Amino acid sequence: MSQDPLVIFTPSGKRGRVPRGTRVLDAARRLGVDLDSVCGGRGICSKCQVTPGSGQFLKHGLHVAQDALSPWNAVEARYDELRGLAPGRRLGCQAVIESDVVIDVPPESQVHRQVVRKEAAQRDIRMDPATRLHFVEVPEPDMHEPSGDLERLAAALAAQWQIGPLDVPLPVLARIQPALRAGKWRVTVAVHRDHGEGPARLVDIWPGLHEDGIYGLAVDLGSTTIAAHLCDLDDGRVLASAGIMNPQIRFGEDLMSRVSYAMMNPDGDAEMTQAVRRAIDTLAAQIAVDAEVDPRAIVETVFVCNPVMHHLLLGIDPVELGQAPFALATSGALSLAASELDLSAINPAARSYILPCIAGHVGADAAAVALSEDPFAQEALSLIVDVGTNAEILLGDRNGVLACSSPTGPAFEGAQISSGQRAAAGAIEALRIDRETGMPRFRVIGCPLWSDEAGFEEAVGAGGITGICGSGIIEAVAEMRMGGLLDASGLIGSAAQTGCDRLVPDGRTHSYVVHDGRPDGGPLITVTQGDIRAIQLAKSALYAGARLLMDERGVDRVDRVVLAGAFGAHISPLHAMVLGMIPDVPLDKVTSAGNAAGTGARIALLDREARGRIERDVRRIHKVETAIEPRFQEHFIAANAIPHATAQFPELSREVTLPQVNFNAGGGDGGGGGRRRRRRG
Amino acid sequence: MSQDPLVIFTPSGKRGRVPRGTRVLDAARRLGVDLDSVCGGRGICSKCQVTPGSGQFLKHGLHVAQDALSPWNAVEARYDELRGLAPGRRLGCQAVIESDVVIDVPPESQVHRQVVRKEAAQRDIRMDPATRLHFVEVPEPDMHEPSGDLERLAAALAAQWQIGPLDVPLPVLARIQPALRAGKWRVTVAVHRDHGEGPARLVDIWPGLHEDGIYGLAVDLGSTTIAAHLCDLDDGRVLASAGIMNPQIRFGEDLMSRVSYAMMNPDGDAEMTQAVRRAIDTLAAQIAVDAEVDPRAIVETVFVCNPVMHHLLLGIDPVELGQAPFALATSGALSLAASELDLSAINPAARSYILPCIAGHVGADAAAVALSEDPFAQEALSLIVDVGTNAEILLGDRNGVLACSSPTGPAFEGAQISSGQRAAAGAIEALRIDRETGMPRFRVIGCPLWSDEAGFEEAVGAGGITGICGSGIIEAVAEMRMGGLLDASGLIGSAAQTGCDRLVPDGRTHSYVVHDGRPDGGPLITVTQGDIRAIQLAKSALYAGARLLMDERGVDRVDRVVLAGAFGAHISPLHAMVLGMIPDVPLDKVTSAGNAAGTGARIALLDREARGRIERDVRRIHKVETAIEPRFQEHFIAANAIPHATAQFPELSREVTLPQVNFNAGGGDGGGGGRRRRRRG
Repeated sequence: MSQDPLVIFTPSGKRGRVPRGTRVLDAARRLGVDLDSVCGGRGICSKCQVTPGSGQFLKHGLHVAQDALSPWNAVEARYDELRGLAPGRRLGCQAVIESDVVIDVPPESQVHRQVVRKEAAQRDIRMDPATRLHFVEVPEPDMHEPSGDLERLAAALAAQWQIGPLDVPLPVLARIQPALRAGKWRVTVAVHRDHGEGPARLVDIWPGLHEDGIYGLAVDLGSTTIAAHLCDLDDGRVLASAGIMNPQIRFGEDLMSRVSYAMMNPDGDAEMTQAVRRAIDTLAAQIAVDAEVDPRAIVETVFVCNPVMHHLLLGIDPVELGQAPFALATSGALSLAASELDLSAINPAARSYILPCIAGHVGADAAAVALSEDPFAQEALSLIVDVGTNAEILLGDRNGVLACSSPTGPAFEGAQISSGQRAAAGAIEALRIDRETGMPRFRVIGCPLWSDEAGFEEAVGAGGITGICGSGIIEAVAEMRMGGLLDASGLIGSAAQTGCDRLVPDGRTHSYVVHDGRPDGGPLITVTQGDIRAIQLAKSALYAGARLLMDERGVDRVDRVVLAGAFGAHISPLHAMVLGMIPDVPLDKVTSAGNAAGTGARIALLDREARGRIERDVRRIHKVETAIEPRFQEHFIAANAIPHATAQFPELSREVTLPQVNFNAGGGDGGGGGRRRRRRG
Repeated sequence: MSQDPLVIFTPSGKRGRVPRGTRVLDAARRLGVDLDSVCGGRGICSKCQVTPGSGQFLKHGLHVAQDALSPWNAVEARYDELRGLAPGRRLGCQAVIESDVVIDVPPESQVHRQVVRKEAAQRDIRMDPATRLHFVEVPEPDMHEPSGDLERLAAALAAQWQIGPLDVPLPVLARIQPALRAGKWRVTVAVHRDHGEGPARLVDIWPGLHEDGIYGLAVDLGSTTIAAHLCDLDDGRVLASAGIMNPQIRFGEDLMSRVSYAMMNPDGDAEMTQAVRRAIDTLAAQIAVDAEVDPRAIVETVFVCNPVMHHLLLGIDPVELGQAPFALATSGALSLAASELDLSAINPAARSYILPCIAGHVGADAAAVALSEDPFAQEALSLIVDVGTNAEILLGDRNGVLACSSPTGPAFEGAQISSGQRAAAGAIEALRIDRETGMPRFRVIGCPLWSDEAGFEEAVGAGGITGICGSGIIEAVAEMRMGGLLDASGLIGSAAQTGCDRLVPDGRTHSYVVHDGRPDGGPLITVTQGDIRAIQLAKSALYAGARLLMDERGVDRVDRVVLAGAFGAHISPLHAMVLGMIPDVPLDKVTSAGNAAGTGARIALLDREARGRIERDVRRIHKVETAIEPRFQEHFIAANAIPHATAQFPELSREVTLPQVNFNAGGGDGGGGGRRRRRRG
């Protein structure tokens, strides 16, 4: 009878006896139950809402009385009146435990709640942001025991939140006195705490209880585009996403031309640094407008990027990354003031975190992919490919992970392709070729219809069909190969050889006409022999990189392939495999991870423990440098054929039989047989 | 016979046996002997020079053989050829111990050497600067084990100098790669380490061995003037000193008028912050030119200042310091990047240290005085007075220290005095009045002669005699009192009452004519009744503050008085005591500490342990707030008389008998008796 009440928290299942009269919030803290509170139990913030059960709990062998918790008190009644408390809910800081009880902590009351994504491919993210809000009551100054307002605030934070020692940037220091007085010695502070050691940092301060949120920006800083997600640091929601072109393009399309620009022009690197920082600042301001959020409420930023962008963002001349031994100025993760990166649109005391680089060619973007895809947690041997101008490739499982980068060039992004263009409205992004007629049908970005569907032309609209983007050219080349219009060596057949009048002479070679917009004043869109060669170079580099890692690992096949990157998300697995971009695996083992680097950036933004994890993991990754590895060249040459000169693709053969054609005039198979041998379907 | 050689280091007396073949530098490290080395024992820096003894050492009972150390090696020979090695000197990193030996470490080879000052009043300073140079050899990058250049540099610093973890500002990070390559993987780094916890900070990096020095700036930021000393961080020498006016004077002469300016004008505080930061930056650039030092070589700054200047330097609105309870925004010491204070003339990664404040009216300047004068180390109960517009007063000994500030006003600086002026050329700084004739003689700043000496007028020159500065007015008032021209209540007698025709009617009161320059187009310099009242107010405040601390301490007398401040250095102890500025003590127990706040700043600059010491000491100081203490008013009123209405001054009486005069018409003593009662000499 006189035993202390038993309290069981769900869903954690944590249980224990606490003295009668214990507040639910205190019981939760004592039992290590994750129950949120910003105001520290003062009945102000309502973050600690719980749902007590009543009746019989067979599972726990417990009967919960109606009055197991104290009745509503005045604070709860007032809160309900002002803002409404959902039925059955109580404030954990007000309700007192009177007898045995089962208490459910709803997800929104958990500090480390999971953010569950709707898209299956996306990771659930554990919420543990580096910057959080805390409500503090600060003792007033006493003339007889003089101490600074900061020192009393720091002591209160230590006593009420176990936070300290506290580092305060000068502009925040200047705001402490007015905030304390306006809030009558009760303030809300935003405090940043690194996952490692080091002091806590005061980022901002508001009088009283600050109920507007604080936000973070996850930035994927690419060579071509800069993409950012604005996330709520309380619940992890993505409030807005936006992207702009990387203005460094005017200094060089690809990374190596930017490194050259830095080498050839005094202060060239500083120019590029200034350009990219300004662009990020503009993007941050824009995304705040989009989300209707005060830009000052953006208190954290996370960056992922390749090594050259990493150095240019930091203001470091990237020249060493252009030559062996490809030494990074720094490989470790960086935690710094956003103001050091000249970000002035957001909170002036905002912090920035930059993920670690893996090697001179494998950057923080690859680390972000590793954080998102977590190969170290996989049973299956996973090949993770982030396709871009450089492809970052990870291979591994729980026994170890290898990484390399491979210079695929810009062909996969539609550059150096005769009718190529970036993935934008008007670009052909998907293409099929009829096996019998050799006629193409295609889909254009911005229009859901295929080109042979009724209403297509109206739907495409005035902009018309402007070119082929990366995923479109991959499908075009693979379809040409499947349709017998292209042989294994990559040679395009003639109309005579194939019986397809879409093949037209083009100098000494042939081109495939995808769409002739000239009658309407539009472009003639073709796939030329040069385009095929560009794609061959790109896909050979990608395959060779993957194969090199497989050699290092001592395996001939992988269990699964993950295509990452904005572009990877749009690649058709079948077409990628017909092309020989990736090693042979069952088609259903090829998945897209979407923008995994961006997801990794979001994880690092929302979960500071993840930062420590990727910093440790990066050190465990075995780096392979493709640029100096002779086997890379061998793999590259053998991978030139479509799909491959020597490797068997048994899984691919199960899906599709590739026509055995050869359009080389001196070839043994002779010309003209392609169309006849073409199999149906 | 086979026992290890005994090595004795002087002057430390540290001794021990080390294996034959041990380098002197290694032996010193093993035995905890303070022997410097920048290059870490590579025979480059020559900082580890020692002087081995030979022959009989009776004191140690040791005979040292001629060949106790290995012969000169090639490194020493080359060093001697290139730069010259003084006779008898060896390089500690080259000479090897072969048998028992006595080795003297000359002062310049000690890391923590004392800087001995010639002036007796100045403290010797232990050298332990927060920023030091270290020579490091860094492994080259390896493509197969990729790691950042920073990470390898940090590992080398940890291995070779036990320094880390390492924090690197971005601009310094950008300089690592070129420095490592230019120096062929050998660099010199300037590393800042706080006295407390926290990471080491990379401040600068140079290829190879950097032999130019690094420097620090100790800044005494006063309400009226900003004074700075440029110190060599290797040996503590003051290379140059300079001062400029505080440009904030245009916002208000005294501190409270600046606080008012901040209250009355939006952004008024920001204006003042910008003005003072710019002035400091200008001063830093100027002092580097004066000392012929690269401003980039200035890697540290230390600031001492009163609380209002402290806040304005930091960019904090000082409004709270103008009203009870006089709450400081922060009272603790601050270690921050000099760039946060907009100091751009010096090294961009330079650090700044600001001493802690004691209370809302007792600032970092008082803390610096406490650091310099160290009352906690005194046997004698010491009253330390830093005289300025506000006087900071410390009272204590090893049993405890009290502090207060007292609002003396600007009279001691020559302001609010009819003929007053700042201490500058042309100002009367010393004055004597003949007891018999009542005639004055005086000395003027910039001229060594007294006014009654031959050649005085030529020596004073064209500028002439322009006014009276603070020390001059104190002496004038005290001399008038001693000469019977002024009574204890502060009333100036008439010519008739005193028989002195230098006393002239001035409205309803009388003035004393010090000098009539009008015939030569100069000013008439007098001491008016208003001047006497202003000095009475100032000295009463000073005395009342001291007396309040004595009450708190429960004593009626102190053992010694230290006058600090640029002004304090020029006050005659006798005259100060006649005036009743300070409590009665034997005259030889009144000393001047010169600019003790500036000395404290230099100590904090050169000895980081001293920073920890004053931070601890400040917390031990008991603060007394004069503004709200009723007894302060009582003491103030009683101190209005010259020297005092009630307190006895027995020590003063031993030196001088003050005439018993009373010039109040209604007074019991009647008028006119002053001159007759005057005692000779």
